[in-house]
Amino acid sequence: VARVWSIVVAGGSGRRFGEMKQFSTLSGRPVVEWAVEACRPVSAGVVLVVPVKLWESTKQNAHGADAVLVGGATRAESVRCGLEAVPAEAEVIVVHDAARPLAPPALFADVLEALDEEGVVGVVPGLAPSDTIKVVDGNMNVTSTLDRASLVAVQTPQAFRADVLRAAHARAANSPDAVATDDAMLVEASGGRVRVVPGYPGNLKITTPDDLATAERLLAAVQDA
Amino acid sequence: VARVWSIVVAGGSGRRFGEMKQFSTLSGRPVVEWAVEACRPVSAGVVLVVPVKLWESTKQNAHGADAVLVGGATRAESVRCGLEAVPAEAEVIVVHDAARPLAPPALFADVLEALDEEGVVGVVPGLAPSDTIKVVDGNMNVTSTLDRASLVAVQTPQAFRADVLRAAHARAANSPDAVATDDAMLVEASGGRVRVVPGYPGNLKITTPDDLATAERLLAAVQDA
Repeated sequence: VARVWSIVVAGGSGRRFGEMKQFSTLSGRPVVEWAVEACRPVSAGVVLVVPVKLWESTKQNAHGADAVLVGGATRAESVRCGLEAVPAEAEVIVVHDAARPLAPPALFADVLEALDEEGVVGVVPGLAPSDTIKVVDGNMNVTSTLDRASLVAVQTPQAFRADVLRAAHARAANSPDAVATDDAMLVEASGGRVRVVPGYPGNLKITTPDDLATAERLLAAVQDA
Repeated sequence: VARVWSIVVAGGSGRRFGEMKQFSTLSGRPVVEWAVEACRPVSAGVVLVVPVKLWESTKQNAHGADAVLVGGATRAESVRCGLEAVPAEAEVIVVHDAARPLAPPALFADVLEALDEEGVVGVVPGLAPSDTIKVVDGNMNVTSTLDRASLVAVQTPQAFRADVLRAAHARAANSPDAVATDDAMLVEASGGRVRVVPGYPGNLKITTPDDLATAERLLAAVQDA
């Protein structure tokens, strides 16, 4: 898999609650370290992007990554920083949230396999949202309820053709006001075909102390099995 | 609050994983019993609707409800059954999922208070989805990524003007093919104005053993406090 490189994105804007949970300890190691390790089996190299306020500490400890960089003010900017450290010969780039320590190897395999389909330039894992999702106006009046059968709540790892991801990020760099909550969104905006494969219910995003406790329990269950 | 009645809906279609978790034991009592109790402070009466396969056992134990009924094949049908047991003089009807044992009293107060606003006929609690939400076509190709800032993942309790909820359900009874994942959806379809108030992050919907373990932990934290 010399052609695959991964970017693990930690923090970013700090607009979301619990950003620093990515550096909390999960079963003896920082959450981010689990996330880097999860990428390892499919990756020729792993680039870690961290918030500037954690730069000093990560210089001492790369958390298993091959390169550590300081990110930008938004998630998209942070991934753009990471792209600069990915060698030009990489054909596929996987982007993974540092806050998802429990993504299993099979999920990486699934997204990479689907990326080999004709015409597909990006693959994201997703699951039907567990709650009903509504659209609201600026005054919090409901304007519609979405058809849950056509919705997916997406996770990472997300896999992309390297050239397509680079082009999408280059394009996005010119419209910094648009908030991209994932990389697939930028690729979609470029017109690329993005596929969804089934996500993994245990692939938690760690944002609260409760998430961390649940992750500890899931990890203990795996280790006992 | 003689004018407020609550309907607690357990199970229904059985199409969703974990339906029976509503009857699992949480800190010594069935999940559904916590849900009924949560409605109690604001309710003149609480009606519990259960799946037919649990009817025999709930006849022996009403789980604290004033009336227990057998539900229908869908969630909407189950709520319609429940409506028949709510007295005509009730002015406000609260619908609550049996799978949400941790809804706090303040959340019931919030939805009821917002229902007093001029022109509002329904109020639902909601939070921004924690994941990026995408729309997919039948082949799981992404067709769009929704603007997360305009989305809410909704919870229960949901509160409605009784006459509006009854009319919306009567209307829905005539189009049984439409799947309503919550009651507000039916009221919206009737053109009624539905408001969103902030949900409560700890207001878990119990669908997996993990959810149950998290609920145990949250409950223990509250009881220790």
